[in-house]
Amino acid sequence: MERKQLIEQIFTKKSFLCVGLDTDLNKIPKFLLNEEDSIFSFNKAIIDATAPYCVAYKPNLAFYECYGLKGMEAFEKTITYLKEKYPNHFIIADAKRGDIGNTSKMYAQTFFKEYNVDALTIAPYMGEDSVKPFLEYEGKWVILLALTSNKGSHDFQLFEDKDGVRLFERVLSKAQEWGTTENLMFVVGATQGSLFADIRKLAPDSFLLVPGVGAQGGSLQEVCKYGMNKDCGLLVNSSRGIIYASSEANFAEIAGEKAKELQQEMEKELDKLKE
Amino acid sequence: MERKQLIEQIFTKKSFLCVGLDTDLNKIPKFLLNEEDSIFSFNKAIIDATAPYCVAYKPNLAFYECYGLKGMEAFEKTITYLKEKYPNHFIIADAKRGDIGNTSKMYAQTFFKEYNVDALTIAPYMGEDSVKPFLEYEGKWVILLALTSNKGSHDFQLFEDKDGVRLFERVLSKAQEWGTTENLMFVVGATQGSLFADIRKLAPDSFLLVPGVGAQGGSLQEVCKYGMNKDCGLLVNSSRGIIYASSEANFAEIAGEKAKELQQEMEKELDKLKE
Repeated sequence: MERKQLIEQIFTKKSFLCVGLDTDLNKIPKFLLNEEDSIFSFNKAIIDATAPYCVAYKPNLAFYECYGLKGMEAFEKTITYLKEKYPNHFIIADAKRGDIGNTSKMYAQTFFKEYNVDALTIAPYMGEDSVKPFLEYEGKWVILLALTSNKGSHDFQLFEDKDGVRLFERVLSKAQEWGTTENLMFVVGATQGSLFADIRKLAPDSFLLVPGVGAQGGSLQEVCKYGMNKDCGLLVNSSRGIIYASSEANFAEIAGEKAKELQQEMEKELDKLKE
Repeated sequence: MERKQLIEQIFTKKSFLCVGLDTDLNKIPKFLLNEEDSIFSFNKAIIDATAPYCVAYKPNLAFYECYGLKGMEAFEKTITYLKEKYPNHFIIADAKRGDIGNTSKMYAQTFFKEYNVDALTIAPYMGEDSVKPFLEYEGKWVILLALTSNKGSHDFQLFEDKDGVRLFERVLSKAQEWGTTENLMFVVGATQGSLFADIRKLAPDSFLLVPGVGAQGGSLQEVCKYGMNKDCGLLVNSSRGIIYASSEANFAEIAGEKAKELQQEMEKELDKLKE
């Protein structure tokens, strides 16, 4: 998907919500465990209920790989279902890959050609040749980890050089030598608060994928205050807060309501851009 | 596998060779493409031919994932074959995973319980809570990226703080607060030459997994000169130089010979420890 189309979707739907499909058999409603493909059944119901309120979906590969071949089959079916029924939704495979150039090429082929997702999350530690192979696909995106939402983000990402440049800032600057605002986004955790302002100094026009609202404690208002740009420039992800809001028979309906609540908050934030 | 057992294997077999199973259908002998599971057939032949000369195998997940479900099936069959026929070989899944704690737990379960490999490569960027879930399995190992073999390693890994501490050095120090020499190794590329001496200052007793000998241009002698410790402390990986040495009918035999050549060089290096 092109940047222009993504922005159009955001302003048409008045939402920059990404729903995280972190489907865990220990957390989905018990009655779904009798289904032949419980993971896909759950995803399908969640997608149908939330699609009107979000612009993106983000399955995290860990949750599919852990069920072996059956899990990867469910992942594949989920992508196919989205592509067929909701072709305007942006699909992010949250895989945090990254390897030497030769190997990153294989991963790029897997996710962008075989699974045909729109974007893939990538870890920056191995540098340029580990990231570039992913940037060579027309209409596909790299979403590079910059400042993540977890506690451990402070261990290395805030590491500071003699001029006060922090590692996540170096990642932001360096990566923009390799990609553009048309094929490169950054992960910035909602829990990082006012650091969003520092991010925007270095990457004013880039889209940011923002996990950590909800279960992890980040505030949507704060993210928007410091992180929003004129094109919105944000995809805010919520996983657990939406998909596990209920484990009753009407779990999908409740997930839809939670997504709608977030969409309505987002609409207010988008309205501020017009002021 | 426990550290003690790994060291015993190294000194018994006079080898610290790890064979990288980066099986690419474009590179394996053409006649194997008629087999029902070409990837597994290739791996099996390579394993049988090289097992006497190596102590470890390292399939890189990228090469299996890219063939979808069939590829992951071949990965699983390869691990099962190794476990059954060569239970003393150390198995490393080269996956370079790492995510928020909740998600790393899922990956740890996948690789250490489902696939039951001995070790998993992990990217350090997300810090402590992304690494720790992997350290909680008895007899299993985290192999953390420290200083990789590729050109891009210089983009971030050599990033230096005001006291001259480089990022890879911070990774080495920090990670040793989380794990021990019994469950934590580091990846250090053979192409990094004399930087091995700096690594050994910070991690004198840790095992190092060393890719980059052969196709990538690293020298075994230099790695041993600066990197070997009294327990050997090295697992040196070769992939392309062994497994693609020939694409003729006798490809496995030739792979065995290449592995034997490396083993003999390694034997000489191990002999120096006795001097």
